[in-house]
Amino acid sequence: MRPVFEKFPSEAAEDAVSRRRFLTGASAGIAGSVVAGRAMADSLADVPPREVGSDLSGHSERSKYVHIERIPEAGPGRRHVDPGDAINSKTPLDKLVGAITPSDLHYERSHAGVPELDPAKHRLLLHGMTQKQLVLTLNDLKAMPSISRMAFIECTGNGWENWKKADENLTVQNTHGLVSTNEWTGVPLKFLIQLVGKNSGATWMLAEGGDAAGVARSIPLTDEIMDEAFVAYGQNGEPLRPAHGFPIRLIMPGFEGNLNIKWLRRLKFGDQPWMTRWETARYTQLLADGKATQFQLRMETNSVITSPSGTMVIEPGYNRITGLAWSGHGKVEKVEISTDGAKSWKQAELSHPVLPKTQTRFQMSWIWDGRSTKIVSRSTDDKGNVQPDRAALIALMGTNALFHYNAQQTWGIDAAGRVRNVLA
Amino acid sequence: MRPVFEKFPSEAAEDAVSRRRFLTGASAGIAGSVVAGRAMADSLADVPPREVGSDLSGHSERSKYVHIERIPEAGPGRRHVDPGDAINSKTPLDKLVGAITPSDLHYERSHAGVPELDPAKHRLLLHGMTQKQLVLTLNDLKAMPSISRMAFIECTGNGWENWKKADENLTVQNTHGLVSTNEWTGVPLKFLIQLVGKNSGATWMLAEGGDAAGVARSIPLTDEIMDEAFVAYGQNGEPLRPAHGFPIRLIMPGFEGNLNIKWLRRLKFGDQPWMTRWETARYTQLLADGKATQFQLRMETNSVITSPSGTMVIEPGYNRITGLAWSGHGKVEKVEISTDGAKSWKQAELSHPVLPKTQTRFQMSWIWDGRSTKIVSRSTDDKGNVQPDRAALIALMGTNALFHYNAQQTWGIDAAGRVRNVLA
Repeated sequence: MRPVFEKFPSEAAEDAVSRRRFLTGASAGIAGSVVAGRAMADSLADVPPREVGSDLSGHSERSKYVHIERIPEAGPGRRHVDPGDAINSKTPLDKLVGAITPSDLHYERSHAGVPELDPAKHRLLLHGMTQKQLVLTLNDLKAMPSISRMAFIECTGNGWENWKKADENLTVQNTHGLVSTNEWTGVPLKFLIQLVGKNSGATWMLAEGGDAAGVARSIPLTDEIMDEAFVAYGQNGEPLRPAHGFPIRLIMPGFEGNLNIKWLRRLKFGDQPWMTRWETARYTQLLADGKATQFQLRMETNSVITSPSGTMVIEPGYNRITGLAWSGHGKVEKVEISTDGAKSWKQAELSHPVLPKTQTRFQMSWIWDGRSTKIVSRSTDDKGNVQPDRAALIALMGTNALFHYNAQQTWGIDAAGRVRNVLA
Repeated sequence: MRPVFEKFPSEAAEDAVSRRRFLTGASAGIAGSVVAGRAMADSLADVPPREVGSDLSGHSERSKYVHIERIPEAGPGRRHVDPGDAINSKTPLDKLVGAITPSDLHYERSHAGVPELDPAKHRLLLHGMTQKQLVLTLNDLKAMPSISRMAFIECTGNGWENWKKADENLTVQNTHGLVSTNEWTGVPLKFLIQLVGKNSGATWMLAEGGDAAGVARSIPLTDEIMDEAFVAYGQNGEPLRPAHGFPIRLIMPGFEGNLNIKWLRRLKFGDQPWMTRWETARYTQLLADGKATQFQLRMETNSVITSPSGTMVIEPGYNRITGLAWSGHGKVEKVEISTDGAKSWKQAELSHPVLPKTQTRFQMSWIWDGRSTKIVSRSTDDKGNVQPDRAALIALMGTNALFHYNAQQTWGIDAAGRVRNVLA
């Protein structure tokens, strides 16, 4: 792995130059402070005095000056919810940095709210086409060999706000807040399967959740899933939080969020899918030609610029463009950015190391000339999949579909610097 | 990078075998549930019914069943503190999994408590031997090119409990809780230096904090530090928390925690160290030969078994040994575990990818025969540094030193399965 920092010198030099331009005239942000800096005497006059602090504690809480929270919503376009009406709660991508999502801000998508399960009473049943069946406790699972890995989880509905039209008042939290990245820890599915002795004829697995909705999905036991799936009890180093499946959930790196079954209560092995209501009714997809797809399980190559993004206001001159890219197929290979409405593209810098099936931070420096324009990002993964533009996606999927919207996201910027959600 | 899962098949097979042994007789943990599983009818009788949940929210809080918090302490051996008496608060390594430390559980070490700084008023002064000086706001820094990377931070006092004697009642939180790993995001030092135009003669940098103690350290501008140091405003995806330097801190991957200056207010560039009281008095080290060291800045190769660890009780049969290893020199190359008091060693499995200057999770399966013994871990980094045993460390450092204790940690296990902190 190349040193984390190697990617910077060229960009740093370029920016140093762009900043020197600012030194010749007043401007916003950096320029302003650079001018201030030059005018200042060699003293600490402009730096606030040191402050006495409060006691050390058991937990480091957030600053009272920091306000970041998710937005519970009742579905596409339904952002004003009554109690009990919310079905998802979106991650504030516009207010986060890096690649990891804080555990309390990982997006939620639930079908019957958030149950508070007692870990001492919870059990996991392994049964079906196996040599033996098992009922495991949380402590049993914690005593087994474990795996820890970073992985994004994305709701198959992420992006659904823009299927038919674009509400220009949406933030990136509204348009793309149903994807998050955590470090997950748990027991490899392959290990559990060895423990119960799965019959060779068992090519499918039913995973059922312990919430009232009893979300249950049939999962094909491909080599990839056998190698990567695991039953997690840890999230960013600590126990799962109730909203994310406490005490245990299934982790299926790269696949639909709803397959990462929360509050997992059983895994059943069989030789065909169970065709639960979740796969016959809810998670099917009506295409442009009137046909419908089932078991469209993998999340696609995707990316979005998180800053500047919807409802932000920028000023002419130097602006840093940054965002996140991800792919259910593997690693992000490259991200290209257009600042002229997808006419020309420039490759963005990626934060390293790039890990498979995680969100990857990208960035690029940009000098905005103050004229209205559109900015767009386009990701390519290491399997050669390229994020489609909206026209190509709609030609294939039509506008009746609800899931798997991964079209390039376009942000319009007017002459006043206002950033708005537009279709292309 | 090899697939995350590749490292498991051999161990999984081995464990599957060791578990089959259990099936012939009743035993604890897994075995017990395996027996239960075999006796059970093919039903969900043993799995609790599904539960209705509460509303979705802006934040996912911890389960009411989960109790993990740091322990504020007043210094070596002083675990019962009065208000205002605490100088550090230790991470509960025994209750965490994976490699990432939750932001609110990252260890704290403060010299004047935790100031709550207003980010709108805070400033960073860059001055000294530079072409120009600058006063930067938080927004200035956020507008600059950024870097995100995982890095451990370790208090130079970590391990000090065991310099002279071992209190057998200590947990791993007490003995090793002054090290944590987060993803940090901020502006590369190299970029800031280009911005102010550091004179070629400026080989040292003074970093000063904004707390009442005004911790200030002289930092040599080596190539490694110029390439890796950065001014961070982000921690695990969110803004820094006050206890960890909000709004900005210096990140110095691999070096003493006290160099990662919190509440950073200025960076001054010069041609020699400033010899602040922090380097003339506090952070010097008295050696066995009566001489003292200054500027012993790099944290050493280290490791500790977090489970089983101090005050835990284990049962005969299958036990999973797991822990964390780290090195300020680079990547962890291997971790060896002894279950016979350092007579023989076996290589542990490492969680991949192994990243430089981060904590790395290791694990190994062990069948305990029920006889009293001692378990020990020993790490080796990619620069060839091997974690010393206690005898070798004491021969070099004596027992008057307070900092940089990285001797192999030994846990004694008696015939009753009680795990205790012992010197070797």
